[in-house]
Amino acid sequence: MAGARVAVIGLGSMGYGMATALLAAGHHVLGVDLDAAAEARFRAAGGAEGALADAAPALDAVVVVVLNAAQTEAVLFGAEGIAPRLRPGTAILGCATVPPDFARRMGEACTERGLHYLDAPISGGAARAVEGRLSILAAGSEAAFAAARPVLDACAEHVFEIGRAPGLGSAMKAVNQLLAGVHIAVMGEALAFGLSQGLDPAQVMAVIPHCAGSSWMLENRGPHVRDGDYTPHSAVEIWTKDLAIVGDMARGAALPIPVAAAALQQFVAAVGMGLGREDDAAVTKVYARAAGLTLPGEG
Amino acid sequence: MAGARVAVIGLGSMGYGMATALLAAGHHVLGVDLDAAAEARFRAAGGAEGALADAAPALDAVVVVVLNAAQTEAVLFGAEGIAPRLRPGTAILGCATVPPDFARRMGEACTERGLHYLDAPISGGAARAVEGRLSILAAGSEAAFAAARPVLDACAEHVFEIGRAPGLGSAMKAVNQLLAGVHIAVMGEALAFGLSQGLDPAQVMAVIPHCAGSSWMLENRGPHVRDGDYTPHSAVEIWTKDLAIVGDMARGAALPIPVAAAALQQFVAAVGMGLGREDDAAVTKVYARAAGLTLPGEG
Repeated sequence: MAGARVAVIGLGSMGYGMATALLAAGHHVLGVDLDAAAEARFRAAGGAEGALADAAPALDAVVVVVLNAAQTEAVLFGAEGIAPRLRPGTAILGCATVPPDFARRMGEACTERGLHYLDAPISGGAARAVEGRLSILAAGSEAAFAAARPVLDACAEHVFEIGRAPGLGSAMKAVNQLLAGVHIAVMGEALAFGLSQGLDPAQVMAVIPHCAGSSWMLENRGPHVRDGDYTPHSAVEIWTKDLAIVGDMARGAALPIPVAAAALQQFVAAVGMGLGREDDAAVTKVYARAAGLTLPGEG
Repeated sequence: MAGARVAVIGLGSMGYGMATALLAAGHHVLGVDLDAAAEARFRAAGGAEGALADAAPALDAVVVVVLNAAQTEAVLFGAEGIAPRLRPGTAILGCATVPPDFARRMGEACTERGLHYLDAPISGGAARAVEGRLSILAAGSEAAFAAARPVLDACAEHVFEIGRAPGLGSAMKAVNQLLAGVHIAVMGEALAFGLSQGLDPAQVMAVIPHCAGSSWMLENRGPHVRDGDYTPHSAVEIWTKDLAIVGDMARGAALPIPVAAAALQQFVAAVGMGLGREDDAAVTKVYARAAGLTLPGEG
């Protein structure tokens, strides 16, 4: 399976990690980003030389790991979009968190051009991306899965085949983001609550992971609060975006989601306090500031 | 350490399990409950014969595993309360989820009588109680820990020594309950949301435990929804009680907890729909009914 020609568009923490995993699996990988320094860094690590427009006709797969739906559409079908330059049969993996309706629309637009669109949102974080150990929540035709196989094999520990057409992969990602976003916000709520009762975050983090109140996010993000380290692994502003997508989808289905709605407001408050680019664990500061509590590393 | 004389007051799912673990460790265990059938069942399983009032002066430890603060106080200091009948030096373990201020007051009242009160809320569920593998979030004097040691050794996999006076154990339990209650509610929110997007609970439960959106409660309670089985392991009405305690504590500290407040309202709605005695996973029905969705096992 080695030797495929793959372009990874978007060299943020997830995209850079996936591109690195593809290189490690023996593929020819062109890394593309608006940030020339990120592109240069990836070329220095073994990435292919050259311009995307020139490479396009020879590509086997394009992995789109940009921020959102608008960027995904621009990359594929914008003024300089790559879709018209790809040869029929090329796999396109849409990895951003996007509304299912958008994924369906991309799938139809690709099918019209003979391209195989895989609705392929990812979960697992930057560390697992580098290791090729992501979970990929994929939906698409059998042909799309087959064409995308070299990328899936290189980047994923778990490939979940959620459905046979684009849309359900993004729906499952939205379910995950609803849970993950709430779990981060309530992690902050619980650590601030503990502090208000005389329990510092180090005490709470020593106990709760052994109790029924634990979550993947508590165990992953709680140490950031305990250590007062808000270096952004995943930023606050991811959640104002993703929980808004979730909220739109739920509203469209006439389903009230009051817990996620409350969590979203805490991330909105964090952005309002100027914390949008900090690690998402900084949502804890919203609680601490509201109650005059001092977190580790502050005050 | 075998051969201690212990009374377990409250033979619900947790208390019965702890009493069983104490028996297995070789102690003399008197099981006490308002329900005579539960007492008879425990005696048949090897529990001690006789009345609590007669046994009291010879007891080494009393484990109080009742529903709430009011029952704990009645058991110890009510008209038929046991505290005046115990000899000085006896350990009393308060295992119910109670406000920290109440635990402090119990501690002081016990100290006045020469009794050792351990603020000892528990986490882990009925299955681990039977196995003697609970987490106990304990706070009290060194003497209280020493006197309670036979019970802690028999019942707990993890004994966390949270503080040197009653109160902080209950505070840590409240932190756990804030998280656990929210995680159950958002589990229901996410499963209903998935259903609204074309993903049934079995699909969601096959994927999300491998993703960053997982939690202990999702993995434990999600299968109840997937299987349409609401046999009460832990009932909805536990959470209207415990999240109200959390809410009172946070209000007392002037800390807004909007996510837990939203979750509490979903449990209140479940009680309002007549689901208070069902398994707490039945909070999912609040979401499903609001949006006209059909859960597994319904419709």
